[in-house]
Amino acid sequence: MESKQVLTNYVATFVQSLIAQGVEHVVISPGSRSTPLAYAFKHVKTIKTYLHIDERSAGFMALGMAKSLQKPVALLCTSGTAAANYFPAIVEAKNARIPLIVITADRPHELREVGAAQAIDQVNLYGNQVKWSVDFPLPDAQASTNQFLTQHITRMVQTAVTAPRGPVHMNVPFREPLLINLEEKFAPVSSVQSFPTRNSVLPETLKEVQTIMKDSTRGIVVVGELPMNTNSEELLKALEKIGWPVLADPLSNLRKFTHECVIDQYDSLMKSSSFTSRITPDVIIRIGAQPVSKPLALFLSKVKAQAVITIDESAQYRDPFMWTTHHIVAAPEDVLSKLIYTGKHATLPIWIQANQLATSKVMEYASQHEDEGTFAKMVVDLLPEDSILFASSSMPIRDVDTYFLKTSKNIDVLSNRGANGIDGVISTAIGVQLATEKEVTVLIGDLACLHDANALLASKYNNVKLTVVVMNNNGGGIFSYLPQKAEDTHFEDLFGTPANIDFLPFAKLFGADYQKVSDKDALRQSFLKETEFSIRFIEVITNREENLLSHRKLWSQIDEAIQHV
Amino acid sequence: MESKQVLTNYVATFVQSLIAQGVEHVVISPGSRSTPLAYAFKHVKTIKTYLHIDERSAGFMALGMAKSLQKPVALLCTSGTAAANYFPAIVEAKNARIPLIVITADRPHELREVGAAQAIDQVNLYGNQVKWSVDFPLPDAQASTNQFLTQHITRMVQTAVTAPRGPVHMNVPFREPLLINLEEKFAPVSSVQSFPTRNSVLPETLKEVQTIMKDSTRGIVVVGELPMNTNSEELLKALEKIGWPVLADPLSNLRKFTHECVIDQYDSLMKSSSFTSRITPDVIIRIGAQPVSKPLALFLSKVKAQAVITIDESAQYRDPFMWTTHHIVAAPEDVLSKLIYTGKHATLPIWIQANQLATSKVMEYASQHEDEGTFAKMVVDLLPEDSILFASSSMPIRDVDTYFLKTSKNIDVLSNRGANGIDGVISTAIGVQLATEKEVTVLIGDLACLHDANALLASKYNNVKLTVVVMNNNGGGIFSYLPQKAEDTHFEDLFGTPANIDFLPFAKLFGADYQKVSDKDALRQSFLKETEFSIRFIEVITNREENLLSHRKLWSQIDEAIQHV
Repeated sequence: MESKQVLTNYVATFVQSLIAQGVEHVVISPGSRSTPLAYAFKHVKTIKTYLHIDERSAGFMALGMAKSLQKPVALLCTSGTAAANYFPAIVEAKNARIPLIVITADRPHELREVGAAQAIDQVNLYGNQVKWSVDFPLPDAQASTNQFLTQHITRMVQTAVTAPRGPVHMNVPFREPLLINLEEKFAPVSSVQSFPTRNSVLPETLKEVQTIMKDSTRGIVVVGELPMNTNSEELLKALEKIGWPVLADPLSNLRKFTHECVIDQYDSLMKSSSFTSRITPDVIIRIGAQPVSKPLALFLSKVKAQAVITIDESAQYRDPFMWTTHHIVAAPEDVLSKLIYTGKHATLPIWIQANQLATSKVMEYASQHEDEGTFAKMVVDLLPEDSILFASSSMPIRDVDTYFLKTSKNIDVLSNRGANGIDGVISTAIGVQLATEKEVTVLIGDLACLHDANALLASKYNNVKLTVVVMNNNGGGIFSYLPQKAEDTHFEDLFGTPANIDFLPFAKLFGADYQKVSDKDALRQSFLKETEFSIRFIEVITNREENLLSHRKLWSQIDEAIQHV
Repeated sequence: MESKQVLTNYVATFVQSLIAQGVEHVVISPGSRSTPLAYAFKHVKTIKTYLHIDERSAGFMALGMAKSLQKPVALLCTSGTAAANYFPAIVEAKNARIPLIVITADRPHELREVGAAQAIDQVNLYGNQVKWSVDFPLPDAQASTNQFLTQHITRMVQTAVTAPRGPVHMNVPFREPLLINLEEKFAPVSSVQSFPTRNSVLPETLKEVQTIMKDSTRGIVVVGELPMNTNSEELLKALEKIGWPVLADPLSNLRKFTHECVIDQYDSLMKSSSFTSRITPDVIIRIGAQPVSKPLALFLSKVKAQAVITIDESAQYRDPFMWTTHHIVAAPEDVLSKLIYTGKHATLPIWIQANQLATSKVMEYASQHEDEGTFAKMVVDLLPEDSILFASSSMPIRDVDTYFLKTSKNIDVLSNRGANGIDGVISTAIGVQLATEKEVTVLIGDLACLHDANALLASKYNNVKLTVVVMNNNGGGIFSYLPQKAEDTHFEDLFGTPANIDFLPFAKLFGADYQKVSDKDALRQSFLKETEFSIRFIEVITNREENLLSHRKLWSQIDEAIQHV
């Protein structure tokens, strides 16, 4: 067989094997060595291709797609440092349990580590940060090679989507010439059909948990970030039936339900010792990732509960405080739907009342003050039905935690909380937008926005529609809340780090609509303004110092309001 | 001892151990977990600190510093994806043999892989891409802990600077609280003094090489990129004495000598089969990295020389063509200075004549035509004495290869050729500028410039002075020279990838002086214009199609000119 045909068969099998395993999206970065696969992806109609010239942004774009779809999404780049640029997104995918399929083209073995151009050691390039890494064979005419491709790709994609989900790495070497035959129709492969499974909780486990719950009078459920494909309605139904207070992180997406057992103000409540002393939980049921709220974490790490039952699809359950006493490896909704609480709950009314008082205070405060938090509330309130809010790590997700009150509007809140990085935020949001085709609004600080500036290059190559709201407090706002703030020496140099950036040219560079505001009215008008631009960029001028004081003021007002619950 | 004092002693020892091993520069990115070391670096006066908010750019900045100084330079960031952003620079450092000291702060063991915020698995994070990775102990009051720090840091920095030089990784966990005592003076540590050594060639090796050379009549020396601390004058003196044609890559920095044995036009000469058939070398001496020139590589890979003697400080000598017959692990200048050629060279006059003809043709062509190559020549010709040209991978370094004619001006040419990435180019150049305090000019294409856009944020935090000349051909120009160009389908989508960027807002964003030119006169005027801006940005509008044709035209004219040598 001539070599062009061998190469064509190889990439046809490769791509068709991915398709057979449900891969529908691939983000490609330009390069030469990846040519055969790039052509092959473009050639098959069942795959949607996206382009980004910066592999770091491309990585996060694919992450955003896989995150919002909860399906495997592929990445393709050429050999060399291109592959290294995927690393931040891969680390986030590993920790956030996102099924990324990372495909790096490589030089053949004879050009590796011999000083050849653009050849680095790509075997196991990402170390422990991927679930599995395979160095693929070169294309050849052996039937077993293509069988190997299909079998391996099937198992690798299944590895990526099996709990705990995560990234896998396919390193694929090619020899020149790199052109394939584009006249040919790629025949589907017959691959092993993979049937989805999930762990089912055993009757005796349920019985034991029920016994623990029965004796509880002050139980709570703490819900962190859940995968986007969680059936929230079913989950809430199960939780309502149990009837315990449900501390719902904004990323749990349980705040789309207004049921009174959903507690959304615990971040402020936990700062109040008069409150926490009255509700000390005796049993805690934990599902999802670690919640955003630090006050909650601090409080719970001190509680000596009789039982902390963590339900997590993975054996690597998440519990930095080492307070878990019981662990069930299963999907939370499967377990919870089977639990019935037969005890008598003593503190639910207190939780509900305190939550209502705190909510009123937050609403009152927001109507009277202007700071990053109340700006965030304005954005949240203006979000259109059935849209997505993507909140950056650092301050935005914390402001969302306070100001995203439970609502019957269908808003999904997303954030990169695997490693809590401020990198790749806009790129991830773009991936979410491209995959869901919903309206997506990003809430982000100035430094995170600059860090991921290249994200917006995506709009030059793909049909992106995005609103970016930048809270520009000229530097790293979150550090003001840390003890470092007390040490004046070097504070601005090391933590404040003001960039003194004018975001007008930033928006212009990417052909975005630009509006600059510094009060809520202007923010409202800007947000509601009709525009023809595909990217809207709203810069909100805020002040780090004032912001810190204002946040503290709200917390103390809430503390006061709930003194007599 | 109270814990703040324990922490202070730990970081004092850490930083003083680095200083004892010659570390003078550290690039810091803001973050919380790295606070103790960040303060410690700021606190000691013998260390110069630099700041960048994007760790990817920070990594390349430190790379540029270490590259130009050939000394270890440190990097410091917080835990999480921040550390992953260093990866591209680390991969380049490994392949380009640059002694980067990568310091990542980490969470303590109890917060690792338990779902804690901003905690990822950082142990051996960079896998094979670093020479050594150590997970440091937590600060404690044991004397042996601080002894361990000094001993380990000493050996790690020595590992980084010993051939083949390369990056090392120090992962350093800290528990809260993170503040140190800044009243305290950090006492220098007494560390093992490390004496530099280098391999010395044995007399019997020299004798054997001399015998091989004696019988040669058509020997050549091929010189790729050499470390910046190479004594070029001594090296050239040794090469002159041998008297063979010296094919000098622009990154060899041997083109600062106008001696006639220095051949700088081999890239064009190697495209001419009438020429190559007349000079077929019988013995080749190879020093430095793989040269940029692809025609040279293609020609040499086909030559059946009697001997190819590769001199490389490392056992991992670089030879993608597997043509080395003899290998000496030593510094090239040490070996060459001891060699005497006693044979009779037959082809030297042909080399010299062809090189002169090609040079005339290049000069004539440059005076009559305008393309990216002749624009590059204009820039090269205008470079001030004792300055540095940083050429991007992809087309710029290739144009420099053709148009950087040997000159007695003291210009150093640098490029990232470890992995030949187009990422981090401007950041690296900024590192070079900050470390050398020389005038630095960057020659770069539009995509590479956009890829590393964040580089220029460095100017917001550090005293950067830089001229960036962007060849804007609206896309990936190099792909037009590859076979992919013949396959029209998807070419622009996958390889051309025009970004349609207006670089005026780009320059404005970073507060840079901006000039846009499209001919040589305007380029000259722009380049020579006095400006008060610390960053000058010159956009040169070129055309991918015309550029391809123009390059081909020059090559065919040179081929014609040397037909009758």
